[in-house]
Amino acid sequence: MGKFLNSRLKDLVPYDTSEEIESMKGYMRLNTNESPFELGPEISKAVKDSVKEMNFYPDPDCRALAKKLSELLEINPEQIILGNGSDEILNFIFTGFCEKGAAFPDITYSFYKILAKFHGVDFLQVPLRDDFTINPEDYTNLNGRTIFITNPNAPTSLFLSLNSIEKIIAQNPESLIVIDEAYIDFGGDSAIRLINSYKNLIVTRTFSKSRSMAGGRLGWAMTNYELAKDFRAVKNSLAPYNINAMTQAAALAILEHEEITQKNLKIIKTVRENTKSALREIGFEVFDSAANFLFVRHEKISGLKIFEELKQNRIMIRHFDHPERISDFNRITIGTPEQMQAMLEALKKILKG
Amino acid sequence: MGKFLNSRLKDLVPYDTSEEIESMKGYMRLNTNESPFELGPEISKAVKDSVKEMNFYPDPDCRALAKKLSELLEINPEQIILGNGSDEILNFIFTGFCEKGAAFPDITYSFYKILAKFHGVDFLQVPLRDDFTINPEDYTNLNGRTIFITNPNAPTSLFLSLNSIEKIIAQNPESLIVIDEAYIDFGGDSAIRLINSYKNLIVTRTFSKSRSMAGGRLGWAMTNYELAKDFRAVKNSLAPYNINAMTQAAALAILEHEEITQKNLKIIKTVRENTKSALREIGFEVFDSAANFLFVRHEKISGLKIFEELKQNRIMIRHFDHPERISDFNRITIGTPEQMQAMLEALKKILKG
Repeated sequence: MGKFLNSRLKDLVPYDTSEEIESMKGYMRLNTNESPFELGPEISKAVKDSVKEMNFYPDPDCRALAKKLSELLEINPEQIILGNGSDEILNFIFTGFCEKGAAFPDITYSFYKILAKFHGVDFLQVPLRDDFTINPEDYTNLNGRTIFITNPNAPTSLFLSLNSIEKIIAQNPESLIVIDEAYIDFGGDSAIRLINSYKNLIVTRTFSKSRSMAGGRLGWAMTNYELAKDFRAVKNSLAPYNINAMTQAAALAILEHEEITQKNLKIIKTVRENTKSALREIGFEVFDSAANFLFVRHEKISGLKIFEELKQNRIMIRHFDHPERISDFNRITIGTPEQMQAMLEALKKILKG
Repeated sequence: MGKFLNSRLKDLVPYDTSEEIESMKGYMRLNTNESPFELGPEISKAVKDSVKEMNFYPDPDCRALAKKLSELLEINPEQIILGNGSDEILNFIFTGFCEKGAAFPDITYSFYKILAKFHGVDFLQVPLRDDFTINPEDYTNLNGRTIFITNPNAPTSLFLSLNSIEKIIAQNPESLIVIDEAYIDFGGDSAIRLINSYKNLIVTRTFSKSRSMAGGRLGWAMTNYELAKDFRAVKNSLAPYNINAMTQAAALAILEHEEITQKNLKIIKTVRENTKSALREIGFEVFDSAANFLFVRHEKISGLKIFEELKQNRIMIRHFDHPERISDFNRITIGTPEQMQAMLEALKKILKG
């Protein structure tokens, strides 16, 4: 590093996007939990129309979008803060609301650790149980650390019951609890219904998964009025115009066609269950997934070998070298029935050796 | 503030966007230095086409865009880091490269102060000369503070010669120097030619002004290879996918039609000079502007009164209550000839009383 970078950042380990970039070169992308469904003409039209006024700054409060979103979620627009992907929402939290440190599972979204390190936030990694589930009892005596729970969790695909979530919230009144619901639309109950009952809860969501807009970058946070006021102050101090006009238009159009999102969700859930059964038939251990991906390992072949051989077949899935505990697993994004069929065929060949 | 916000942020004063939001309600927008030129069908088409793959994550390295931009600027793509508006670029610098504090003029882009306060960066405001020019001699003994110079400066509209810029860079080898060239296309020489000659220079730019894309949110930084490496590490730690697919497509299309940008620039410069003369004819003091706005005051009427009366005429310009030194001035964005004519007519009525 050069002498101008803050010394605190000398051991900076950025988020590694190299695999995603490589996967753009004509691979079947089953490695980043994207939606296989292309956005329709109604979205392109809304985006095209938004270019007309793009010489002006976008609405910093995204009023039309926040209103539509709040109607869908049955909360108040003031309780919503939008971000340039939920990554930005998480960055706002790590930079503005983690004075007493952070705590999150040892196996979860890897970006939490990167943000904690960057912002000098002391973080505690709470081990998952041996069966990879979260034990609410492990989230006690955290001395006000901000707690991050991805639910359903990634890469495990497991959902933690709302009762357990509420237990963690209730037993940590001095901690801010962030429930990252990037995958909630694919299964499980949302913690949204709890945001007005607790002073210490933030729920985050994204348009990248169930709403097929990973390329449009939009995430949001929902919380009680008091916290929302502080959250908005943080957002307006760092990025007052963080959501561009096209993304606002695309997201509004997506919400105006919620029936398409719901139809896609049905398909993904069906394909997920079929793929799970098919994988089990050929000897894979597959967790019961509440997300748009499966967490799998095979009794006979290492996770790394499966990953590498699928890659040779131009199919990208996600392998984890570390922690060692999951190095035999792979994470497979649920794609179209055709994609799943192609992947299963490839796996069968690989198993035959 | 609530108990979960970092105590460091208890006196947080966010960027105030209320006037911009109000100005969206059918006013003539001469208050935010936007371009009056609508983006054309070639841009809408590129954006529309980008929606096709928007279910996938965008290219985190914006390779096609960075390549095109680097060709235009005759530098290497590796020397470019793109941001969600230059506001994000500035945030990266304040959070990653200001360990020894910051220094900037007392009258300049107000966002520097907001970012410095947010990140707990000790900042020094260096007074402009009485004639509102920057004196390079005032930028000495800064003990490694990162120096921010907007050139041309806002709201003064004044350009600081490249010789003076180079003097500041050369006499502060322990300081990182950030030359914010948001308005450089409207007048003056860019410091880009110096980025390979100095280890401590970052030049920032934006698509919001000369490239008519304030609503698309895109800015970028240019620097030497070593600094670019650290800068990219900061970006990839905070916001790996910060530029959405539509913005990448729109910006690429804008660069592929550079002739339109150049045509628009010619018009703005001509209208600026004509408007300057017309304002002087009716008793305004008008600085010689190298930007897309004019910094003006009138011998007989207060800046506040002019601002308020124009607002009653549905014309928004930018007034500054503080610092006291500029409270009699207003900043007027250069619009179309028709807009300038309408503004001048309104001003004449106001002057008649």
